[in-house]
Amino acid sequence: MVINVGVVGATGHTGEELIDILLGHPGVRITKLYNTSAEPQIISEVFPKFKNRIDLVCKKLDLSEISDACDFIFLALPHTVSMGLVPKILKLGKKVVDLSADYRLEDARIYEKFYSIKHKDKPHLKEAIYGLPEIYRAKIKDAKLVANPGCYPTCALLALAPLVALNLVELDSIIIDAKSGVSGAGKKIAKDFLFSEVNEDFRAYKVNTHQHMPEIEQVLSKLSGKKIKVTFVPHLLPLNRGILETIYVKKTKHAELKAQDLAGLYSKFYKKEIFVRIRKDGEFPRIKDVAGTNFCDIGVKDDGVNIIVIAAIDNLLKGASGQAVQNMNIMNKFPEHLGLL
Amino acid sequence: MVINVGVVGATGHTGEELIDILLGHPGVRITKLYNTSAEPQIISEVFPKFKNRIDLVCKKLDLSEISDACDFIFLALPHTVSMGLVPKILKLGKKVVDLSADYRLEDARIYEKFYSIKHKDKPHLKEAIYGLPEIYRAKIKDAKLVANPGCYPTCALLALAPLVALNLVELDSIIIDAKSGVSGAGKKIAKDFLFSEVNEDFRAYKVNTHQHMPEIEQVLSKLSGKKIKVTFVPHLLPLNRGILETIYVKKTKHAELKAQDLAGLYSKFYKKEIFVRIRKDGEFPRIKDVAGTNFCDIGVKDDGVNIIVIAAIDNLLKGASGQAVQNMNIMNKFPEHLGLL
Amino acid sequence: MVINVGVVGATGHTGEELIDILLGHPGVRITKLYNTSAEPQIISEVFPKFKNRIDLVCKKLDLSEISDACDFIFLALPHTVSMGLVPKILKLGKKVVDLSADYRLEDARIYEKFYSIKHKDKPHLKEAIYGLPEIYRAKIKDAKLVANPGCYPTCALLALAPLVALNLVELDSIIIDAKSGVSGAGKKIAKDFLFSEVNEDFRAYKVNTHQHMPEIEQVLSKLSGKKIKVTFVPHLLPLNRGILETIYVKKTKHAELKAQDLAGLYSKFYKKEIFVRIRKDGEFPRIKDVAGTNFCDIGVKDDGVNIIVIAAIDNLLKGASGQAVQNMNIMNKFPEHLGLL
Amino acid sequence: MVINVGVVGATGHTGEELIDILLGHPGVRITKLYNTSAEPQIISEVFPKFKNRIDLVCKKLDLSEISDACDFIFLALPHTVSMGLVPKILKLGKKVVDLSADYRLEDARIYEKFYSIKHKDKPHLKEAIYGLPEIYRAKIKDAKLVANPGCYPTCALLALAPLVALNLVELDSIIIDAKSGVSGAGKKIAKDFLFSEVNEDFRAYKVNTHQHMPEIEQVLSKLSGKKIKVTFVPHLLPLNRGILETIYVKKTKHAELKAQDLAGLYSKFYKKEIFVRIRKDGEFPRIKDVAGTNFCDIGVKDDGVNIIVIAAIDNLLKGASGQAVQNMNIMNKFPEHLGLL
Repeated sequence: MVINVGVVGATGHTGEELIDILLGHPGVRITKLYNTSAEPQIISEVFPKFKNRIDLVCKKLDLSEISDACDFIFLALPHTVSMGLVPKILKLGKKVVDLSADYRLEDARIYEKFYSIKHKDKPHLKEAIYGLPEIYRAKIKDAKLVANPGCYPTCALLALAPLVALNLVELDSIIIDAKSGVSGAGKKIAKDFLFSEVNEDFRAYKVNTHQHMPEIEQVLSKLSGKKIKVTFVPHLLPLNRGILETIYVKKTKHAELKAQDLAGLYSKFYKKEIFVRIRKDGEFPRIKDVAGTNFCDIGVKDDGVNIIVIAAIDNLLKGASGQAVQNMNIMNKFPEHLGLL
Repeated sequence: MVINVGVVGATGHTGEELIDILLGHPGVRITKLYNTSAEPQIISEVFPKFKNRIDLVCKKLDLSEISDACDFIFLALPHTVSMGLVPKILKLGKKVVDLSADYRLEDARIYEKFYSIKHKDKPHLKEAIYGLPEIYRAKIKDAKLVANPGCYPTCALLALAPLVALNLVELDSIIIDAKSGVSGAGKKIAKDFLFSEVNEDFRAYKVNTHQHMPEIEQVLSKLSGKKIKVTFVPHLLPLNRGILETIYVKKTKHAELKAQDLAGLYSKFYKKEIFVRIRKDGEFPRIKDVAGTNFCDIGVKDDGVNIIVIAAIDNLLKGASGQAVQNMNIMNKFPEHLGLL
Repeated sequence: MVINVGVVGATGHTGEELIDILLGHPGVRITKLYNTSAEPQIISEVFPKFKNRIDLVCKKLDLSEISDACDFIFLALPHTVSMGLVPKILKLGKKVVDLSADYRLEDARIYEKFYSIKHKDKPHLKEAIYGLPEIYRAKIKDAKLVANPGCYPTCALLALAPLVALNLVELDSIIIDAKSGVSGAGKKIAKDFLFSEVNEDFRAYKVNTHQHMPEIEQVLSKLSGKKIKVTFVPHLLPLNRGILETIYVKKTKHAELKAQDLAGLYSKFYKKEIFVRIRKDGEFPRIKDVAGTNFCDIGVKDDGVNIIVIAAIDNLLKGASGQAVQNMNIMNKFPEHLGLL
Repeated sequence: MVINVGVVGATGHTGEELIDILLGHPGVRITKLYNTSAEPQIISEVFPKFKNRIDLVCKKLDLSEISDACDFIFLALPHTVSMGLVPKILKLGKKVVDLSADYRLEDARIYEKFYSIKHKDKPHLKEAIYGLPEIYRAKIKDAKLVANPGCYPTCALLALAPLVALNLVELDSIIIDAKSGVSGAGKKIAKDFLFSEVNEDFRAYKVNTHQHMPEIEQVLSKLSGKKIKVTFVPHLLPLNRGILETIYVKKTKHAELKAQDLAGLYSKFYKKEIFVRIRKDGEFPRIKDVAGTNFCDIGVKDDGVNIIVIAAIDNLLKGASGQAVQNMNIMNKFPEHLGLL
């Protein structure tokens, strides 16, 4: 079976990555590319790297042609644009993975606080499934609308899920020190992202005010059954792709946990997951090993007081387009890793 | 007054930086350069960047010529080498700033644990003054032997001193997430420091086992009067120079502290310090602003539960050679900033 | 049809890339990995990025097991090692692509001059086919031993072949200003390739003495029928992968060539080639567009006196492992692009 | 003697560098900073790295206050803005170094062709002295208006002057392959200069159409007495600062030149120049050695047909602000290297 796929927002960072993955996916044919530019653009002229691989024209979205041309839609759009389109596309009976933040937060008030805009599609907010397969696979299988997780939350949640689910840590003590490459910022043309500003520099930004923080808190709260607040400080790394998060959590007193068992415990928790790899006791992940892949690598250490969890992903793959394809695979009964290894 | 200065270990990273600073220092003449290589080397052939600036020959240390040729000695040597030389140089009546770790830790057992070698000069261990001017200036003035602090400790201690001295935080809750550029590793020729390994990568190393951890704990313990243990995770940044540390500490319950007062409190604590700069409330330091300088920039934030302190230095300057010259200035009654602004 | 493939030298840069490509190649199963280390190594422990993708053990080459286990052999070995193995492997009746320089130069004396070692396998030197498919495809089809071209020569030859073949330039005027990322140097652990030496630096090396120069001259001489000498200056770029060469050649007087026709002429020359992409008149290639691909991008300009040709490849793919797989595809009657798009 | 200096255009790249140099210059006091922003800005808030070093306010240019406040003016303005101001400042009797291109080209028609704007101050065009001290020192001494050279021309002219002046090369054969770090582009906020576009990339731009080409041709033509055209291809390096140019020129037939004499010939030509350093035969410059300095390093090689000259400078120092201060030193009878070593 080959399904016909459309990518809306094909000329952004995540759209570019989606095309790259889907061109190598044996179960998929890209039939339509859309973006918001007034003039049609040949995708291989926007991205010369795609020349001789794909020669579709990217144009303004035309809902009427989607019906026939596409079985499945990826929305790789800026936040706040997606929610204007999702109802129309669902109405056409097409399944959607939305890579924006528009359907990730269940509580529209929190969305409105962190994204500074009214939510325009509350009905589908309830229907949307949070697309973190390692936790919500069962629901994703039957979903019509999947909200693809943010990059920082994907990494933080995979790192924290075992500790929270197994009740090993003080839930009010979670500190996430996150570091991301520049592609996390998309293709924004702003002084902050100039080469001369980023190269040979390193800095924190949005200290404890980043919009991914409530996303992390929402999922952790659901996993634990308690309202969880985290401390979250993101930083900007002078490299293209990759996230590494160093997470500190206090052990609960009763946690009868031997330091050397931690890696084992994580391995067990994720033993059926192909895209989560646990490093041996004493080893830790690095960005180089996950860049260009859909893997999340995790290392753990008990320092006596805190458990230190270090996790790494490629922010554009497991943190965005790779995970989106993983979700598409699940929604279409493909093997989950198809096109992703 | 111009003093004659010798640099022992002139061809390492910190030696190179020392020469660069001292060539622009109006109170100093470099008279001797030494290293451990068998053959004499013209320093401007080792470092072509010094051509037309200095043409001294660098050769094996000759204690006999130091007496006449040098008023002051910098030891920019690997750990464990310094302690073989310090007694001999002090005997000649010369003042010394030692940039290695050999005289930083008061307790020789801790030294031996973290540096895996017996300490060979315990007598002078007691005499050595820890060369962090912002805290120990009074003692440095009359010191004969100054142990120049490590790069990570300099940054962490300047960031934490106000909180610890003013008793605002839970002393058992200190978490230091540190990130350093590659020059922190000196010029070690090892796979880990190849361009192809470091570029486009980011990783933690020596997770909670780094030899700078006890140095931080020693000074914090003395400042607070209580035994302090910290959690310390260093990471390797793909850039040449600079350290940024993000530090998380729990507020004490009784701390009647308004969030917006934190920057003010820090500014007051450091108001006489030219090399410590406090960022305004809501602003944070970045490596770019301190690279190539002797400054330490600090920003603070109260997230309700924790105080987050972010501090940045140039690891080769305020974290090594710049601070060494700052100490030399104090020991010789020069203006403290001479040659450093 | 699926063929069984062995990689000898699996833990070097080009071996690593070969594994990465072959894991996604539908016509191939990797059955054996070899290197020169004394102890067997699990390949996913040498390269944690391969975990969950391949779990073979890499061990010392064992010729006896190759007979049964492999249909095809890649030699990804250092120069001078390959020629010790090739005769033995050919004797087993296996086809070989050798990624080293050992069989590229027809004249053993030139090999010996540039590689400073006696050639030990002159008989097969004559049989080896130079594996640049765009020029020697017909011979590669039936070859038993393919000498995979060097990275600089691949780029230079594809850039120059049309001009030389069509007799448009003065053959004694070729100047090749080449720039390569660091992976071109393999994984050599040497001061020159430390991050602190390469980052924020750029420099020429082996100015007109590089061992790839005679390889370029040999092929150009054969293409033109005249003995060609080139000027060749390689430089080291502070980036991981990619080569860009800027080539200057004087036009022949009789060349009735309109500036705007150059791109057209190149497009025509390469019209059947999937891996050579000619940029439009006025546009030029960049490393970003070819990094991670098997493409060679070329742009051309006539400045009145000289023709300027700019070409770019990924040194590890079209300049090494990608081209090796392209050769394997040809030798095994696979579609030439299989596993490479 | 201390002179009062004003910097117009203080918040651009070259303005920032000028401030940095002048703060360490013992013969200068910065009294005024100007830029074009509507609101006054504290310079240490624009550049936090200047905090505790300078606390001037940067505001819109006010010609009336210059008379009293400044003895000397640097114009660090975008091309085409300078020529509107120069006449007014010269009228006040102040000496000026203009870092823009407005007074570099003697022929206004060429200026208009390459900068696409009418020249508005032809009278002073004739008076302006081209500020390359190693060639025009005598004229700079008495100049009122110095046109500070472009970065690429500074490097190319110092590299070529000996060959052209001594008549050793074919004047119609000069090929300049130039590579520059990103700061050469100033602080333009454009897609091309985003980190994600420049990092891990390398590309040519303005192939043989760059506006610095006529500047090089003008000076070479004057040096040789013949009209010289060059081939000039600039490239963008993924690093912050530095230019390296690889230059190819055909030897004249009669040049009785021994290969090994070239370095000697260059050393002799520049023997009185502190800022030009000739590398020994067989050694070549690298960006690392000149970054952060006012030096130009040069290496030369004879390959039989061509002379290859490789030269490197810091584009912001010897290629802009450093050379501007060198010119100021000459114009004010300071030692030429004051504040620059």
